[in-house]
Amino acid sequence: MALIAPSRRVRRTPFSDGVEAAGVKGYTVYNHMLLPTVFESVQADYRHLKEHVQVWDVACERQVELRGPDAGRLMQILTPRDLRGMLPGQCFYVPIVDETGGMLNDPVAVKLSEDRYWISIADSDLLLWTKGIAYGYRLDVLVDEPDVSPLAVQGPKADELMARVFGDAVRAVKFFRYGHFDFQGHDLVIARSGYSKQGGFEIYVEGSHIGMPLWDALFKAGADLNVRAGCPNLIERIEGGLLSYGNDMTRENTPHECGLGRFCNTETAIGCIGRDALLRVAREGPVQQIRAIEIPGEPVPACDRAWELTAKGRRVGQVTSAAASPDFGGNVAVGMVRMTHWDAGTELVVETSAGSRPAVVREGFWI
Amino acid sequence: MALIAPSRRVRRTPFSDGVEAAGVKGYTVYNHMLLPTVFESVQADYRHLKEHVQVWDVACERQVELRGPDAGRLMQILTPRDLRGMLPGQCFYVPIVDETGGMLNDPVAVKLSEDRYWISIADSDLLLWTKGIAYGYRLDVLVDEPDVSPLAVQGPKADELMARVFGDAVRAVKFFRYGHFDFQGHDLVIARSGYSKQGGFEIYVEGSHIGMPLWDALFKAGADLNVRAGCPNLIERIEGGLLSYGNDMTRENTPHECGLGRFCNTETAIGCIGRDALLRVAREGPVQQIRAIEIPGEPVPACDRAWELTAKGRRVGQVTSAAASPDFGGNVAVGMVRMTHWDAGTELVVETSAGSRPAVVREGFWI
Repeated sequence: MALIAPSRRVRRTPFSDGVEAAGVKGYTVYNHMLLPTVFESVQADYRHLKEHVQVWDVACERQVELRGPDAGRLMQILTPRDLRGMLPGQCFYVPIVDETGGMLNDPVAVKLSEDRYWISIADSDLLLWTKGIAYGYRLDVLVDEPDVSPLAVQGPKADELMARVFGDAVRAVKFFRYGHFDFQGHDLVIARSGYSKQGGFEIYVEGSHIGMPLWDALFKAGADLNVRAGCPNLIERIEGGLLSYGNDMTRENTPHECGLGRFCNTETAIGCIGRDALLRVAREGPVQQIRAIEIPGEPVPACDRAWELTAKGRRVGQVTSAAASPDFGGNVAVGMVRMTHWDAGTELVVETSAGSRPAVVREGFWI
Repeated sequence: MALIAPSRRVRRTPFSDGVEAAGVKGYTVYNHMLLPTVFESVQADYRHLKEHVQVWDVACERQVELRGPDAGRLMQILTPRDLRGMLPGQCFYVPIVDETGGMLNDPVAVKLSEDRYWISIADSDLLLWTKGIAYGYRLDVLVDEPDVSPLAVQGPKADELMARVFGDAVRAVKFFRYGHFDFQGHDLVIARSGYSKQGGFEIYVEGSHIGMPLWDALFKAGADLNVRAGCPNLIERIEGGLLSYGNDMTRENTPHECGLGRFCNTETAIGCIGRDALLRVAREGPVQQIRAIEIPGEPVPACDRAWELTAKGRRVGQVTSAAASPDFGGNVAVGMVRMTHWDAGTELVVETSAGSRPAVVREGFWI
């Protein structure tokens, strides 16, 4: 593996000093920003995440802020999910598609008020799409990237750690809801959400200057909880079926192919982009879809490109994320499989970069 | 420095196999794709680039293709450069700005025909902006990312190497013009352009499958020219004043601040986005502008964040790229400096990550 080259273009975060002091060993780049990928080892980080509590620098989940009288209208134009029932205090997972129904991003929208939203984005410049649409539609809305950097606290001891820093009221925040909490005189939005299945929170850190003070406060408060710096864990997120935009889905795919049909209300989401393209697939279903794939045996190599899935030598899909699983044995993987071969138990062959391996379609993800 | 983590999301290129075989040591991520940053060492790569010929995997210069009756209209909506005189066969450097005049990208537009353009982009998802604008304006144009991956051949022996592979006619291609050339039955667009001041070409490799055959053909033909795998070189591009989007300019800056006023014809580029915002600055000039900055003495650390430029303790600008220069001594750097302090010879202080250093504003870049 090669080193990542430093440059301003690959932006540091308000927490980078803490991440480096914690001994980060690997990075990826996400929304033009550094995202840690490993501290001790992917396996050790995984074990620790499942047993203790971790603080994650996910500042790369940049926010697209919509502000102004047309903010709500623009939000509904952007997604086929019907947002009429969304209230301030709620977070909605919202597929964003282009006019062909192709996925542009799969962010979480945070409704701050009737005229203000944050869209917490996956790895594509959704800001540019959103600005382009707002400008083309001549909407009365400001679209910008504010100085807001999410910091995630994940793991079974997340509630305990958060309560020590923000008070017991934080325990009452429900899944995909947020509350306002004080940190050193700053009002912060804290949601119960995050890119793991171990439970936890995402703190929307508004103001880069409080990044390291908050980081330090969490580590000080959690010393006896064995708190560590962590990051989204490849193994754990595959086991939990958490998809990754750019890995498991791209602009080639509809939300229905990604198993996100339950987040689309294409019939009633009047005015949303992609409605014409998605109405038919919403009724008839997609011809390929995301499936959990098991690859028994020895660890597969790093999945740095799409691996073909074949049956009797014919291409029936692809695997786009894979990792050896300490808890479930063999390898866990995410695949996109054609309907002729997507039933649970179907035996396939996956063409990894290190040769062919048997693979099996599973009923669901591991946890 | 940390390792770069492999994933499909950080896309490999049609030339990655060749890049790896050549011993790439560092990568960055550019347009969600791997871009090599160093082979032997940045200093050794620099020396070789100035004396011989290099083949660069710049597939990350993704193309945004505009195709259809409104392609020309959309192209003019996107940029304040007046495109009325642009002919097929020409490449134009085109600043792309938002409605506030802020830089979104600084690509090269390639006019293939009256109804077809490629926009060879810097590091932002210009595809999303372009699609959003085309959709919002209801234009009759297809906007997509085609399977086209630029491969650059740069250095003083570039003409000789290219002539051996594509025939002597390639020598006649003028700067920022392109011609059509055959490679194994494939028609390729080849422009005289590239991100160095050593001369050379960019081959728009259409069809990923011919990537490695072309890579191999270039190395075979250039063995006695000392051809090597290379990449945009940090030192050489700063010496030559080649700006980097995301490093030296962002959405915060107007083209005029970036010294790109000569590529803006805001008065006559009717219908372009950002016209209202830029008309005044086009007349009056910007209050800060890109300048070549010399930092004498020992090598500075890697410039991985903006370094403040100060005068008498007051902030007057920032440095965003810097490197020690073997040929010119000391350190060469790119800065954005307020007009009160931008005259050649002005002595400033730059706050590097390793402490304060004296710096001087130069009349121009080094070559």
